[in-house]
This record gives sequence, C-alpha cells and structure tokens, in this order.
Amino acid sequence: MNIIDIITKKKNKEALSKEEIEFVVNSYVDGNIKDYQMSSLLMAITINDMNDDEIHYLTNAMLNSGKKLELSSLGIVVDKHSTGGVGDKTTLMVAPIVASCGVKVAKMSGRGLGHTGGTIDKLESIPNIKLNLTEEEFINEVKNINMAITCQTDNMVIADKKIYALRDVTGTVESIPLIASSIMSKKIASGASKLVLDVKVGSGALIKNIEDARRLSNIMVNLGKQNNIETVCLITNMDIPLGNNIGNSLEIEEAIDILTNKKDNELKSLVIELSSYMVSLGLNISIEEARNMVISKLNDLSAYNKFLEFIKYQNGNIEALPKGTKAYNIKSNMEGYITKIDAYKLGRLSMLIGAGRENKEDIIDYTAGIILNKKINDYVGIGDILFTVYTNKDISNIDFNIIDITNNKIEDPKLIYEVIK
Amino acid sequence: MNIIDIITKKKNKEALSKEEIEFVVNSYVDGNIKDYQMSSLLMAITINDMNDDEIHYLTNAMLNSGKKLELSSLGIVVDKHSTGGVGDKTTLMVAPIVASCGVKVAKMSGRGLGHTGGTIDKLESIPNIKLNLTEEEFINEVKNINMAITCQTDNMVIADKKIYALRDVTGTVESIPLIASSIMSKKIASGASKLVLDVKVGSGALIKNIEDARRLSNIMVNLGKQNNIETVCLITNMDIPLGNNIGNSLEIEEAIDILTNKKDNELKSLVIELSSYMVSLGLNISIEEARNMVISKLNDLSAYNKFLEFIKYQNGNIEALPKGTKAYNIKSNMEGYITKIDAYKLGRLSMLIGAGRENKEDIIDYTAGIILNKKINDYVGIGDILFTVYTNKDISNIDFNIIDITNNKIEDPKLIYEVIK
Repeated sequence: MNIIDIITKKKNKEALSKEEIEFVVNSYVDGNIKDYQMSSLLMAITINDMNDDEIHYLTNAMLNSGKKLELSSLGIVVDKHSTGGVGDKTTLMVAPIVASCGVKVAKMSGRGLGHTGGTIDKLESIPNIKLNLTEEEFINEVKNINMAITCQTDNMVIADKKIYALRDVTGTVESIPLIASSIMSKKIASGASKLVLDVKVGSGALIKNIEDARRLSNIMVNLGKQNNIETVCLITNMDIPLGNNIGNSLEIEEAIDILTNKKDNELKSLVIELSSYMVSLGLNISIEEARNMVISKLNDLSAYNKFLEFIKYQNGNIEALPKGTKAYNIKSNMEGYITKIDAYKLGRLSMLIGAGRENKEDIIDYTAGIILNKKINDYVGIGDILFTVYTNKDISNIDFNIIDITNNKIEDPKLIYEVIK
Repeated sequence: MNIIDIITKKKNKEALSKEEIEFVVNSYVDGNIKDYQMSSLLMAITINDMNDDEIHYLTNAMLNSGKKLELSSLGIVVDKHSTGGVGDKTTLMVAPIVASCGVKVAKMSGRGLGHTGGTIDKLESIPNIKLNLTEEEFINEVKNINMAITCQTDNMVIADKKIYALRDVTGTVESIPLIASSIMSKKIASGASKLVLDVKVGSGALIKNIEDARRLSNIMVNLGKQNNIETVCLITNMDIPLGNNIGNSLEIEEAIDILTNKKDNELKSLVIELSSYMVSLGLNISIEEARNMVISKLNDLSAYNKFLEFIKYQNGNIEALPKGTKAYNIKSNMEGYITKIDAYKLGRLSMLIGAGRENKEDIIDYTAGIILNKKINDYVGIGDILFTVYTNKDISNIDFNIIDITNNKIEDPKLIYEVIK
C-alpha cells in the first residue's frame, strides 16, 4: 500500500478500505506517513467525506493506536462529552449531580485550544487541585465517591492526539467523519459503558447547521452501538453562549452559583437535561424519573456537596479560587432589545483577553474572562452595562462589538433541538 | 492574513484574492507557511479548483518568487514544453530542426521524476556533455548556433520548485490550475517570446481526458497572452507510447534515427508538427510553409547536422554513447493484433528497470530501457518478440504484461487531437 494512491482515491471520492485506513493511521503514528501527506488526505476527507464503514474503520484504527482503560470493575459507568462550545462548563455540574444520584462518572477531559479553555483548564484555576491521576487513583476515586475527573493520558488514542493537532493548523477541523471518529475513539478508550453526547450547533460551534448535527449524532450513536456503548445525543443551541460567565475561574464560580441554586438560567436547564439522560441510562429508569431525581439532588444540595467532596478528594482548595482584579464595564450606546450575542466572537474575545490559548504554548490567565449582564430579549438603555471584562491585558485595541441591539424582540431561542438515540 | 482562514475559504469553494494568493506563495517560500498547511491547501485547490483570475494571480506570484531570464538581446526566441509523457523525447529533435530553420530556441529543461527521465537525463547519457550553462554561455550559444539546452537554474521560480516537490508526494499532481501555473510560470521566467505546448492526454499522462486538456490549453494560451507570449497548444495522444525506444541513451539513438531519416513513425509525425508550429511562430509564416521547410531540413540532414553541432558545442561525445549489454527479449504467448500498449505501465516498467527515478536521490542507469518491436494493430504470432528490455537489474520479479493482444484490429489511434491558440 502507498499513501499517494490512498490520497488519490479519496481525492477521486472513492471509499477507502479497512486495510487502507489502518495503514494510514498506523503509518502516521509510526512517522512513515508525513504530516504533509496526512494533511492532504485530511483535506480530501473534509471535502469528499467518508461513508459509515470508513468512519467505523477510522474510529477503530484510532482506538487501537493506544491503550484502553479497563473500568469493568466499576460496573456501569456513564460518561458525557460535548462537541465544544463557548462557555461550556456543563461537566463541572453534570458530573457531581449524576454522582449524587448514585451513578458512577469517570471522566477524562482535555485542555482547550482556541476559544475558552477545556474542563481541565477550568478546574486548574482551583489552587492545588490534582488532575493527573494514575489509573489506580482514578478508579479508586470513582469507587469511593462515584466520580473523578482527570487529564487524558498520553498513551491513549495516540493517533487522535497527533491527527487532532494537525487538523487544528490545517483547516480540517470542521469535518463530520473526523469529529465523529475523534470523539468516539476517545470515549470508547475511556472505558465507559453508557454515553451522553452534547452536540452543539451554531455560530460558536464546529457544527453550523442542524442537518450536520443530526448526521454526526446518528454516526456517533451507531459507533457506540458497534462498541456496546449505549449512546444518547442531545443536539443543543450554540448560537447563544452557555450561561453568563466565560473564563476559567469565572466558570467555576457560575457552576457553584447553579449548584447552590443562586442562579437559574438556560445553562442550568441544559445541565439538568444532560444529567437526567445520564441518570436515566445509568439507573435504567425513565427520563422523567431521572429528571425528578436530578432536581431533588440540586434542591437539597446533595449535588453541591458532591462537587465539594470531589474538589477536596482531588486536593483542590475551592476557598482560594482566584478572582480578577482589573475589571472593565462595557456599556450600551443604544437602546433596544438584545437579539444576538455572537458566541463565536465572544469565544475569540475571551481568548484575546487571556482566558484561552491561541497557540499550544500560550499560558492561560485563570482569572481572565467575561460576565454577561444581559441575555437575549433583555431590554437595555443607553449606558446600561452589557458585560464586564476581567483581564490583565491591554484592551485598547480589542473590539468589544459582539452584541446586536434592535427595536423588536425575537422569538426566544430554543435550547435543545432534538434528542437522538 | 492567516493561512487557516485561506485554507478554509478554498475548502468552502470560495475564490482567493490576489493578496491571499501572494501571501500564500511568499509565506511558503519564506517558511512561514508549513508543508502540512500548503499540502492541505493544494488538496483543496485540486478538488475545488480555481477560477481564471486565481490561476493568473498564482502564476504571477510563482513567477515573482525568483529571477527572470532576460533574452531580449536575442530577438524572437521560441520555446516548447510538453506536459510529460512516456518516451517523450521530442525536444531532442524539435530543437535542432527549428534551429536549422533559422529560429532561435533557448530551452531550459528539467530532470524527470517517476516514469522515464527528463530531457536533461536523456542528454546526460551522452558522455562529457555540459548541461549546466551559465546565463552568458546559454545566451551566447543561442546567438552562435540558434539553439542551446541547459538545466533549470536554482534561482528561478523558487516557489514552483518547492510546490512541485510537495505535490509529487501529496497526491496533488493532477490539478489543472496547479499544472497551468507551474508550466507557465517556468516558461515566462525562461524569457521566450513565443511558445508551443504539447498537452498530452491519456493513460500515460497527467491529463486523462480531452475536456481537461482543452481547459488546460485555453488557460495556458490566456496566461501566455497576459504576458505577451504567443502560445499554441497541441493536444496529443498519450494512450500510445511515443516512438519505439524508452530509456535515456536508447531515446538519443531513436532521435538520431529519426533525424537521419532511418525511421518513420508517429513520433516523427509529432516532431514535424511541433517543429512546424514553432517555425510558423518564429518566422511569422503559415503552418504549411513552415511544415515544408521543416521537412526539407530533415531531408537534407540540416537538422541532424544542427543536432551534432549542438552536442559538440556543449562538449558532448556522441560517438561514445553507451549501449546496454544485458538484453532480454519478451515474446508473445498468443497470436492476434496488438490493440493496447499501456503507456502508464510502460513508464512504470522503465523506471523499475533503472531508466527513471522513483525517489529524487535514485541514480539513473543511462543504458537501461525498452525497445518496442511492434506498434498498435501489428499482427503477432506466438513466440514473436514484443519488446526487448535492456537492464542491469534482476528482472525475475518484474511484470512484463503491458500489451493487449486481441482477435480484431482497432481504429488507428489519432496522434494529434486538436490545436488551440
């Protein structure tokens, strides 16, 4: 087999065989296929697509490029994953809620690149927290307190790490086959037995329209089935930012506000839905029963106490969560209704002020971020505060124009479009 | 400007601006755009194409990446180029024929990669020949004897050299915009005032169908116009090999056979046509007048004498042309008419026996090659020699099955499909 013949096949819109896909993944990991050849193939895949069989082969080849985590000693373990969005901090709440319902959550998370940080970056804003657990520590923690969150280890889905880094710098991020195989190879390797996926759609997400989200969801549900992992996808709106706070320590604060019932917003609604589907899968009960249980665990603070237990177990000092010192209020220069908060621009903005990484080596300012003061269809007058920016950077050249204000309200945005299982 | 935004634009089938294309070419030459990013963009271009404006910008950006040769002191200079085919040795005959008609030919040629060698490799089989002329030597030789052939220099179309090498290993060779800009940037840089292009179509060529050949030809004729270079394209058949001999010194021998009127085949017909169009352009006479002149210069051996003069001027010793020692006759095991000689497989075969390079560092065996004993529609019986292989390599594992023999003749293949100017 020859990489140029394989690239040419995909360029000509032909399907690749199992053997060809395994050859590509293994040879790329070995270094026999070069970055410039892989990126050419990835672009051909991005434009000419893959069929379900090819995606299945690719997912398995990536999975087999590294070690799989063996969690069978834990019984049923439920995992969740989001395809990524601006201000997406649901894991911070969903994991303790689900654990407080008696369902085991063993979560391996990544760091972010672009936009805001990943779950690991957010948790790292808590002083002293330990996030590089050994396999034994990880499993023991789940046994003891029903949940654990740790960094992805270097020896799992090695191919995905290498391919993901290349996609990020070659314009091949927005490809359904590549997204599906990347997510599912990681999730299968993480050893969970049930899975809830939050597939985000909209300007702030990788997937821009509902048809693509539906296709991605169906593919991932099928990949789950092929690997005995019951999978449910919630297709959710990423045209609006998730919650009010963007930025690492600010998102921890908002998670605490929601877990302590100080705040009720669309982020809380999404957290309840995701948690309910996980509990429904984990306890094999109806979604209605699960939702009732989730709400009661929030109301009686069991979920919040689980969050505190988890932070303490992993050595974090939540009392010492840092706060930003320099704050800038961005005010409205017109009056009317807020009809758009551009999630993509908000993500870019949060990166520029220090909350995210533009390059892998960039250092995150954990206190940097944005607190939105208004939501869609709120009325604002001239001089009203739209949002507050926390940053240690010079903001004189930054464009804060991310909110549209018009004379008329719009229809209230939908939070969850569809559930696919 | 940002390479990822530019790649994404082309991935989404949008046209790139002049500034974006210049940024890409210059940053790639500088090393600021990496090979893996360029190959991703090249694949997006290969699949999603470029419009005429983009091809124009790309050609100019590549041209401006290096030095241009100044030939105005020579008056009208006519150049030729072939898009490449198996056994394509026309330059060896066309240049002396045209020069013997009083038209100046200043030819910069390349080495081959894959299939058989390039014109420079073929000439290098002549002992002592000097092919790395200085600019002054090159121009003086054209002034003195109306022709010169030299290697492309390193300081011309630097972007093309880098992009061509990358295309070769990333499955992005077969792209009309990339072929057109590569050929025309080199030809414009070489300083010729008129140009005849041999656009090859068929299994042994980069361009597989007549529609693509027509589009490529029209693009190149227009690029010529934009740069004041009158350009004529002959679209010619590459389903059949060119002539009987493939391999470097063997092709020099066949060129001599044709220039000395010892052989009359479809290669000679093509050489006469290409030469006639060049003479017609160079002397501003009709194609019929030019063809009569070309035939008379062949008949009275003026063209052959010009060939000898050129070899001697560049210090070559044609008497010492090496010959292969080990020869293997490949015989027919069936009877019938030859209906296909697979030019692509023939090219691969000649490379495997040592006549071409698989990798840039491979060393060519100048005496290795193949002499075809039969042509399309010839009748063969069992045991008749189909071709003779000259090689110093072990041939025990080589597949010599490149000829189809059937019960009925086919229509005689056409040599020249169309002329576009």
